[in-house]
Amino acid sequence: MNPTLEIFSQGEEVITGQIIDTNAAWLSEQVVAMGFTVTRHTAVGDKLDDQIALLQEISVRADCCICTGGLGPTSDDLTAEAAAKAFGLLLEFDEVAFEQIKRFFTLRNRIMPESNHKQAMLPKGSERIDNTWGTAPGFSLQAGRCWFAFMPGVPMEMRHLFLESIQPTLSSRFILQPGKLITIKTLGIGESAIQERISAIEIPPQVELGFRATTDDVQTKLLFPHDYPEIAMAVLVAEVAGQLGDNVFAIDGLSQEGGDLAFVVDQLMAIGKHTLAVVETASQGLLAAKCIGADWLLETRYEQSLDKLAQKLGIAVNADDLSATAQAIASEIQKTSTADFALVQLYAGDSKTFHDKDQAIILYNTLLTGDGFHQTTHSVAGPIKRKQNQAALLALDLLRRYLQHKEL
Amino acid sequence: MNPTLEIFSQGEEVITGQIIDTNAAWLSEQVVAMGFTVTRHTAVGDKLDDQIALLQEISVRADCCICTGGLGPTSDDLTAEAAAKAFGLLLEFDEVAFEQIKRFFTLRNRIMPESNHKQAMLPKGSERIDNTWGTAPGFSLQAGRCWFAFMPGVPMEMRHLFLESIQPTLSSRFILQPGKLITIKTLGIGESAIQERISAIEIPPQVELGFRATTDDVQTKLLFPHDYPEIAMAVLVAEVAGQLGDNVFAIDGLSQEGGDLAFVVDQLMAIGKHTLAVVETASQGLLAAKCIGADWLLETRYEQSLDKLAQKLGIAVNADDLSATAQAIASEIQKTSTADFALVQLYAGDSKTFHDKDQAIILYNTLLTGDGFHQTTHSVAGPIKRKQNQAALLALDLLRRYLQHKEL
Repeated sequence: MNPTLEIFSQGEEVITGQIIDTNAAWLSEQVVAMGFTVTRHTAVGDKLDDQIALLQEISVRADCCICTGGLGPTSDDLTAEAAAKAFGLLLEFDEVAFEQIKRFFTLRNRIMPESNHKQAMLPKGSERIDNTWGTAPGFSLQAGRCWFAFMPGVPMEMRHLFLESIQPTLSSRFILQPGKLITIKTLGIGESAIQERISAIEIPPQVELGFRATTDDVQTKLLFPHDYPEIAMAVLVAEVAGQLGDNVFAIDGLSQEGGDLAFVVDQLMAIGKHTLAVVETASQGLLAAKCIGADWLLETRYEQSLDKLAQKLGIAVNADDLSATAQAIASEIQKTSTADFALVQLYAGDSKTFHDKDQAIILYNTLLTGDGFHQTTHSVAGPIKRKQNQAALLALDLLRRYLQHKEL
Repeated sequence: MNPTLEIFSQGEEVITGQIIDTNAAWLSEQVVAMGFTVTRHTAVGDKLDDQIALLQEISVRADCCICTGGLGPTSDDLTAEAAAKAFGLLLEFDEVAFEQIKRFFTLRNRIMPESNHKQAMLPKGSERIDNTWGTAPGFSLQAGRCWFAFMPGVPMEMRHLFLESIQPTLSSRFILQPGKLITIKTLGIGESAIQERISAIEIPPQVELGFRATTDDVQTKLLFPHDYPEIAMAVLVAEVAGQLGDNVFAIDGLSQEGGDLAFVVDQLMAIGKHTLAVVETASQGLLAAKCIGADWLLETRYEQSLDKLAQKLGIAVNADDLSATAQAIASEIQKTSTADFALVQLYAGDSKTFHDKDQAIILYNTLLTGDGFHQTTHSVAGPIKRKQNQAALLALDLLRRYLQHKEL
């Protein structure tokens, strides 16, 4: 069994929503990778009683707790006092901490304000955690079942302190057996359809299966225990990925980094030394925007009116056959462009349909390469920004499918 | 005394740090603005017992709790079950919820997977919260001292559900005395420059002043107590905004909605009945993408090579004077376009500079309208995605400044 760990964040600006608590996520990623099981994140504000109650709760519930915030010099920084009161300790002046705080100001040619004296008061019996990145030292203490580490909340200071001092301490204090997380990323298949497709696969009980739908993909996650045999792991991942077919665009956690769809396409285009010209409609610039930094994307255009675009290119629109229209556009684009691929993304549906979240538009993607036309069609509903994002992703995904099929 | 409120987030991906819990911060901002005092944020994972224990704790501790996550169709979505078990309720099939779920799939021409049936099972005695934005209905119930509202964790669905259903219910269930939050949104001026400009203004002690830098703007926030006189408030806001000059593109919290920059530009373009053609370079489609749904954006193009673009348009590039080059491009674009405005966004800097976060590129924005050329120049450093985003925003902002100056 992994030791359990909780994250405690202190800050009025966190619980009032003025800042997003990125520390909790960052710390969790670190400790999960080390082999802890994170059971809770809790954030409280500036009230001393709330902090005391929470620290006491955690001391009987978790094996370890990483705390951030509330170590500053001002009157609303109460975490050292809360820790002392919660566990019946006195606050004691720490000479070494005080020298470090003074030194921080001396090095910056500044005079230490009186209020910083407070930051050298640590709970009696706690261990000081030296902080060379800011004024507040951290400290650690054992209370009940739980080992607590307290750090300042400023993300940069906190990250340095964690990596330099706390992580090594955790490794020596706890017996840790980190698991291995594999993430299979797909596009073009929903969460419940994935579940149905893989339902026949027997997943051993010690492997945790999870799903996550983001705006840009659907992820199937397999968390393996540390001692799971490598080969059995590879076989299971291949079996799951196999059921999802060419909807899979990346697998994270294996030998190389998976990345997002634009990253995968970028790699494939670079390997094949191809270049691309794009026409966007529903995605309205978002496909191009997703490829920022890509040398192979030579030109893109967006035209609100398909008729006007066709007129400029000297072709006719066949409203009953947008696939044929997309092919004609792709052929014309290729004539004037130096790019060897042309990707055209059209859609059927008027402006009202496009804006209405309950109505679907039909997307027609056409890719023209040296070996001819490749096409996909999709129906996409939802708010306009979802339609736009799906249009960009699904057109890029046609390119990805063609390249993976061809190159691999 | 304000009623107390806690935020409960459910999700293994939250406590393992795979995603940052932005829902908690967003919800807190909303409810603080309504007049609640937020006392805790807690996140737990997929373990049923943890969820049950936490719900029971909250039911004796807070007046209200807003819960997100765990309402999906898969086996690790356990929140409805946890709520039922925590408060000794049975799960009951909800016919109306089931019809809504089925309708969601029918509208998208998809067959409802068997697993979605589960999402229609709600704790007996709870009230269903209709969700027209996704498959999972929410629900609410009173337990002990606390009124609980449960919503899906997908941020977009959650936000709609909160604004449409939960916010009105909270307003009628609780006696609230909300303060008034005014947010002044600016572009083109940093946080410390703002602080300096307004340092001479006397802000009364009962008004809370705060700042927040987002990727898309810098916000100056003034939180007034509920009984602060209207006129004094308007005077103070005008004084602060006045110091920030035409960097201010919107003020949220006054009579009408402020919105983001694209929203403001959209309103102004619609009022003036103008249309626009765009050439993007550094923003690479992102300017167009931000204007999704805008009827006035007729066409945009992106060309990786400025030389190639100039060649197609039949003009010469003057590398020593990109402003002049941008003017020549704008003039050519206007000749072939039916749009009455042309906006051209160029930049100086090679591909290496563009990719290097420590090097700056110089952006040249040129707007051509019936009364001639309007130009801005900016230096932008940072990671490539920041450069891209700033390029899109600053070009749009030139259009905004022109329109506000002209129309208002």
